[in-house]
Amino acid sequence: MKKQKALCRFSISMAQELVDQLDAMRKAKGYANRSQAVADMVRDQLVEYHEHVGAYEMAGTVTLVYDHHKRNIQALLTDIQHDHGDLIIAAMHVHLDHHNCMEVLALRGRAADLKDVADRLIAAKGVKHGKLTVTTTGKDFAK
Amino acid sequence: MKKQKALCRFSISMAQELVDQLDAMRKAKGYANRSQAVADMVRDQLVEYHEHVGAYEMAGTVTLVYDHHKRNIQALLTDIQHDHGDLIIAAMHVHLDHHNCMEVLALRGRAADLKDVADRLIAAKGVKHGKLTVTTTGKDFAK
Amino acid sequence: MKKQKALCRFSISMAQELVDQLDAMRKAKGYANRSQAVADMVRDQLVEYHEHVGAYEMAGTVTLVYDHHKRNIQALLTDIQHDHGDLIIAAMHVHLDHHNCMEVLALRGRAADLKDVADRLIAAKGVKHGKLTVTTTGKDFAK
Amino acid sequence: MKKQKALCRFSISMAQELVDQLDAMRKAKGYANRSQAVADMVRDQLVEYHEHVGAYEMAGTVTLVYDHHKRNIQALLTDIQHDHGDLIIAAMHVHLDHHNCMEVLALRGRAADLKDVADRLIAAKGVKHGKLTVTTTGKDFAK
Repeated sequence: MKKQKALCRFSISMAQELVDQLDAMRKAKGYANRSQAVADMVRDQLVEYHEHVGAYEMAGTVTLVYDHHKRNIQALLTDIQHDHGDLIIAAMHVHLDHHNCMEVLALRGRAADLKDVADRLIAAKGVKHGKLTVTTTGKDFAK
Repeated sequence: MKKQKALCRFSISMAQELVDQLDAMRKAKGYANRSQAVADMVRDQLVEYHEHVGAYEMAGTVTLVYDHHKRNIQALLTDIQHDHGDLIIAAMHVHLDHHNCMEVLALRGRAADLKDVADRLIAAKGVKHGKLTVTTTGKDFAK
Repeated sequence: MKKQKALCRFSISMAQELVDQLDAMRKAKGYANRSQAVADMVRDQLVEYHEHVGAYEMAGTVTLVYDHHKRNIQALLTDIQHDHGDLIIAAMHVHLDHHNCMEVLALRGRAADLKDVADRLIAAKGVKHGKLTVTTTGKDFAK
Repeated sequence: MKKQKALCRFSISMAQELVDQLDAMRKAKGYANRSQAVADMVRDQLVEYHEHVGAYEMAGTVTLVYDHHKRNIQALLTDIQHDHGDLIIAAMHVHLDHHNCMEVLALRGRAADLKDVADRLIAAKGVKHGKLTVTTTGKDFAK
């Protein structure tokens, strides 16, 4: 038998004109109701807060765009990934055109560690552009 | 007699463990209750949304750090401000040390126009660092 | 025979103390030399600039964390993806724990269109957290 | 006699097509030459880097929008400011309309301390929207 997540229902007071604007925005963004829109804001602020606090385990991605014809670029990126094997879970490789590819690495670890490995990958000779994105591991972050 | 703002009371459902984390974060940030914390998230997302949509009138600040001993820097910044007099409401000048000062301009206008004048001010020869901050005019944004 | 990319060599003047700080930062970030560090800053600012201008074709990722036990979540995400099939190139699915998974979609299109599909995916019932990351397609963005 | 800042001249190699795009962007942003555009990128990345490292003294602003008719809001904001008097240098008050005003505080201190006081001010009952902006003190940040 599957355990049900406990739902908590509480009420919020806001000025009517603010609620009207919330409703317009959440519809434009495709939220079915206010609870879902507000819960997403709460989770978003929690991710940002946990990222700053630093001690939490986070998930994330590093997105890298590079020309795979560049000598040694793939070997170099593989080396850096192996130095941080405990942080990197998986990778996806997308061909953007004959030269350019986008590689997306899925990571998991403390925010500070994710930032370190992202810095090294983005700085690697041959990487045209890179970005780190930090999100939640989903644990204790119910929906 | 002062007109009362209409308050809207509605209820939200969220998983208990998410509410627990919301409570921990809002206390750490100094919010007296959930309504205030959630209303601030709503307003924050509205500002970001309005900034992207572009047609709304926004308020904002441009923060500039420069060495006021630099030849002509103040005349140059004044010239740019006068070219956009309709956008700039006020300015504050702070002495950081013998050389460096921080100048903060208060702006009001469409987000795209605020970005244009900020770009020109930040690019001005002599400005060490600058940033644009966009916020609400407070209109229709009750609290 | 492979065509060589034309390299452009130009000189930059900066205060000595700024160059010293640049060197300290680029070493901490793992850049082999100043050219590479500066070229990365240029590309980073170009991505941000192109994202705002809006007309450029960009690449990007949407990172979604959700509980795959949630009823219909995968069917829902697949539906949204099919509505925007021209924008979505590939997807990677990572198991974070028994419940939670991170799905990363690789996208390509105008920045405004990427934002639209990201908004819909992030708003989908069951998605705990989501983020859009915009980068370059690498075209005309040599390294 | 005024001491001259030592200028450092060094050369950078970049692909021609990247330099062309840099030139187009810097002209659109109003930079007189490449040195100034690149130096601004360097300073911008240094501010972001120092903000994360945390130990540096930074300057900054907190921008607050509120309805000054709200009971006690000004007394409350003044109290918080007095609790952090060592961080707050100056303030500017702008009347946006009959109800709304924007108050901009100029701050100086460690990035973490600036964030703390900003959190408390933004969370204050009556503040509609607030933002912290961190910049350099200009020291050792020549232009």
